[in-house]
Amino acid sequence: MRTKAQRDGNLRPIAEVAAQLDLSPDSVEPYGHYKAKLDHRLAAGDPPTGARLILVTAINPTVLGEGKTVHTIGLAQALQHIGHRAVCTVRQPSMGPIFGIKGGGTGGGRSCVEPRVEIDLHLTGDFHAVAAANNLLAAAIDTSIAMDNPLHMDPERVTWRRVVDINDRALRQVRTGLGGSKNGIPRDAAFDITSASEVMAILALSTDLADMRRRLGSIVVGETLSGKAITAEEIGAAGAMAAILKDALDPTLVQTTEGTPALVHTGPFANIAHGNCSVVADRLAGRICDYVVTEAGFGADMGAEKFVDIKVPVSGMPPAAAVVVVTVRALKVHSGKYKVRAGRPLPPEMAECDVEAVEAGCANLEAHLANLTAFGIPCVVAINRFPTDHPEELATIRRQAEAGGAVAVAESEVFARGGEGGRALAEAVVAASAGGAVQLRGAYAPKAPLKTKIEALATGVYGAGSVCFEARAAEQLGRLESAGHGGLPICMAKTQYSLSHDPKLRGRPTGFEFPVNELRLQAGAGFVVVLAGDIMTMPGMGRTPAYLDIDLDADGNVTGM
Amino acid sequence: MRTKAQRDGNLRPIAEVAAQLDLSPDSVEPYGHYKAKLDHRLAAGDPPTGARLILVTAINPTVLGEGKTVHTIGLAQALQHIGHRAVCTVRQPSMGPIFGIKGGGTGGGRSCVEPRVEIDLHLTGDFHAVAAANNLLAAAIDTSIAMDNPLHMDPERVTWRRVVDINDRALRQVRTGLGGSKNGIPRDAAFDITSASEVMAILALSTDLADMRRRLGSIVVGETLSGKAITAEEIGAAGAMAAILKDALDPTLVQTTEGTPALVHTGPFANIAHGNCSVVADRLAGRICDYVVTEAGFGADMGAEKFVDIKVPVSGMPPAAAVVVVTVRALKVHSGKYKVRAGRPLPPEMAECDVEAVEAGCANLEAHLANLTAFGIPCVVAINRFPTDHPEELATIRRQAEAGGAVAVAESEVFARGGEGGRALAEAVVAASAGGAVQLRGAYAPKAPLKTKIEALATGVYGAGSVCFEARAAEQLGRLESAGHGGLPICMAKTQYSLSHDPKLRGRPTGFEFPVNELRLQAGAGFVVVLAGDIMTMPGMGRTPAYLDIDLDADGNVTGM
Repeated sequence: MRTKAQRDGNLRPIAEVAAQLDLSPDSVEPYGHYKAKLDHRLAAGDPPTGARLILVTAINPTVLGEGKTVHTIGLAQALQHIGHRAVCTVRQPSMGPIFGIKGGGTGGGRSCVEPRVEIDLHLTGDFHAVAAANNLLAAAIDTSIAMDNPLHMDPERVTWRRVVDINDRALRQVRTGLGGSKNGIPRDAAFDITSASEVMAILALSTDLADMRRRLGSIVVGETLSGKAITAEEIGAAGAMAAILKDALDPTLVQTTEGTPALVHTGPFANIAHGNCSVVADRLAGRICDYVVTEAGFGADMGAEKFVDIKVPVSGMPPAAAVVVVTVRALKVHSGKYKVRAGRPLPPEMAECDVEAVEAGCANLEAHLANLTAFGIPCVVAINRFPTDHPEELATIRRQAEAGGAVAVAESEVFARGGEGGRALAEAVVAASAGGAVQLRGAYAPKAPLKTKIEALATGVYGAGSVCFEARAAEQLGRLESAGHGGLPICMAKTQYSLSHDPKLRGRPTGFEFPVNELRLQAGAGFVVVLAGDIMTMPGMGRTPAYLDIDLDADGNVTGM
Repeated sequence: MRTKAQRDGNLRPIAEVAAQLDLSPDSVEPYGHYKAKLDHRLAAGDPPTGARLILVTAINPTVLGEGKTVHTIGLAQALQHIGHRAVCTVRQPSMGPIFGIKGGGTGGGRSCVEPRVEIDLHLTGDFHAVAAANNLLAAAIDTSIAMDNPLHMDPERVTWRRVVDINDRALRQVRTGLGGSKNGIPRDAAFDITSASEVMAILALSTDLADMRRRLGSIVVGETLSGKAITAEEIGAAGAMAAILKDALDPTLVQTTEGTPALVHTGPFANIAHGNCSVVADRLAGRICDYVVTEAGFGADMGAEKFVDIKVPVSGMPPAAAVVVVTVRALKVHSGKYKVRAGRPLPPEMAECDVEAVEAGCANLEAHLANLTAFGIPCVVAINRFPTDHPEELATIRRQAEAGGAVAVAESEVFARGGEGGRALAEAVVAASAGGAVQLRGAYAPKAPLKTKIEALATGVYGAGSVCFEARAAEQLGRLESAGHGGLPICMAKTQYSLSHDPKLRGRPTGFEFPVNELRLQAGAGFVVVLAGDIMTMPGMGRTPAYLDIDLDADGNVTGM
């Protein structure tokens, strides 16, 4: 009988990985042989200042992804190769894309976090805990309304949504409470994917259990018939939500392909959420190593901007440098000359040398470099090397990146060669981060009105010429300002494929009108979600979803994932 | 800093509990310091024959519960006290009642499974895995319909339901796919509580991963426009569901208050599901001890009958004896003279000696003893002692039980005194089970038509005078018979508070008409669910739900649960 340990090949026991970090066994809870939860209290106290925080971000990706997770992991490995103690902090993958679009969220090649299948599926159950807490609150709201509505809640103004960690388009808009009064009151309702839950954001931004408990209580779930906000605290569910989430605040320790320690925590989806790993994970990592490598989701217009304006104000850990991952492939797509599609092979002509297309596509890179430089962060451009890249194309990227403000450009082969393939990148990052934590400048003044902040993002970061607030959004803007939420930062929800709101606008679009459709208060998380363009907070599955290929073999191994 | 280990008091490390069972460390996956998953392959091969299986059941309970879980745990402890190696197998509690009605599902007093809060909440994530697999299939069905419907599924005849492990009345009947064609096709849909999912039943009844995979593929999710059944295999989701569930087939090892090994696996709710612990858990326990004590949910008309007619035919492990738990309190309620309500103190007059009421209530006990005796199982009646019991009342129960066919009657104080309080019960169980596994006689002939089996349950087990099939049920009966499912056993869904379908009919009602409202095929689980009376497969929360009292204290301990 082959044991599960044997099935996982040559991974190091997680107890050994933890011991290498000098963690007391009392702070380490094993979950199987290769995962362990670390007590969040290891992150207690003031933000750590000894470690350099490296932010890994990217240009606007194609549907194939450009290797940001691979480089977050690979850079941590490479830093170990050149003699530093490094830990990477990555987000837990969502089961939505894993079963919806081919591919998980654990890196690839020689730069993965392991055990991959366990990380791609339940890991240590945090996403499930988030969904349970979120949905308990939803049931509590409908119960309160059905049981004589003591809070005088307006059923038409319930803003709290249920969640599920599956791409389920049929749940985007539903009507609940049908079938008679024993089932409550019929009303329009909606489901989001779990990562978009305010509860996920609260988990990511809480510094300890007391902070998490307070934030859960501050969630605004709707309004009374006379227009007064109603909180989760008033519903009476915040304490139970905290109980459900008590272990989810502990990040999960795993290892990379090369045995480098990695922390996995909280959710992805920087297009519809803030899409950064947790404050607790970064702070904890900062106490046990010299370099913390963390990933912010999608392009620098999304995850990295939210890192700057939402996460760092809470974590108190500004970065020392950023890595901007690019591929020749994506730059060619940004030229507008080529198209790639998920689950399809690349058009063969994309493998030909096309310096002109790469040069045109570099406009996208330049925009992100300009934004990151404006934030005050030194940038290293990492070219994620593919066998089909041509030297002239690479030279073009190097030239354009340097002209665009990059302090260094490094070719990287961490996918194919692991940490060894990232030596040049690691050395460039060490040099670029020598000044330590930077003095960050956000995309907007935190105390500016919401409208001003949205305009600053649209015109300053995305390149819009103007902003158009739809009637509903304009009304919500007024209500949020007068309710005293004007000082909150913005969590923009828009397409990840373009600097703009429109996935078809590649490269560096300018002068476009940026449409703001809807605002959603997330008072517990401490921001206002702004929806722009056709973005949806519940993805759908396509014609050939990834689950069709996934199965178990006779030995109980997962195949096709 | 107090560690989590210290917080859990004087529990034994789970590795020590596992070592005591001579389990190889390779087969034990720790989940924290006090829980471990055991490789389901420890249960492989023919059913074990060395251990005696003791089935713990009860009379029809009140809303307060009569101590069946307490006695499952307490009897295992008591058997250890008198020198036997015993393991109990109990169901994982559902979060629905934990947040809905006061009280968890981990026993009580000196007969608990520990750590209680962890077991009551996520345990090792199996319920979450069941919900994820169930809801992936639901999303896959709607995706298939939305994407040109290649299987020609009739959207009005989708029978697969989504699940959530929360008492959420608003989700009993919903309309999904609203908001335009990008969200699919609008249709009526429903959510059940997770324990009622066919996936939960499959997990409980599968003997290994291959069996589970096959059963998942056999799930019937609906029909084509021309009336042909469509399976999860045809939808293409069964492999991915198996991947999601691969670790959920491993039972979780925990310990009792006294350190006795206990396996926790699969779901409760014998009123709407089969409500038994898993086949894998029983088989695995049967290989590592002399006495396996297992619990079947609610009264013997529900969980125990399903144990006999659904579980044993799969497990191949007939019991050697049954324990029927009674309380003076519940017998008084069965007299019709007293009422108890959840969350309220008992009426003070119930503490007075009332032999007449106890004697009248014993009619309920006698019915269960008659049924269990007809199944061929020797019965020991366990009187769950309360300080308010009077000697004359106890003598009455003893007399009535013996007259009703019990081979022994024992007073038990396992709640107050742990295993020591169950010595007499344990000795009675050892004597009653001396004949080893019995020759079971089910409530009906397995190959009889569905209608005959339903009638056998209603008139033979519940005491009905006749059965009334509503039009819909009669039509479904015909369809299931002609589709070749007539040979499946019945999984009855009815109230747990009465032998009948009507919670108000206490004691031993006879001559009533038993109404069958609906049939639901669960082809993967291998049975037909029959709904009778007002039973619902999604509970609701009441006016003062338990979550109102639950919170975290400053040390991160859960309070109020």
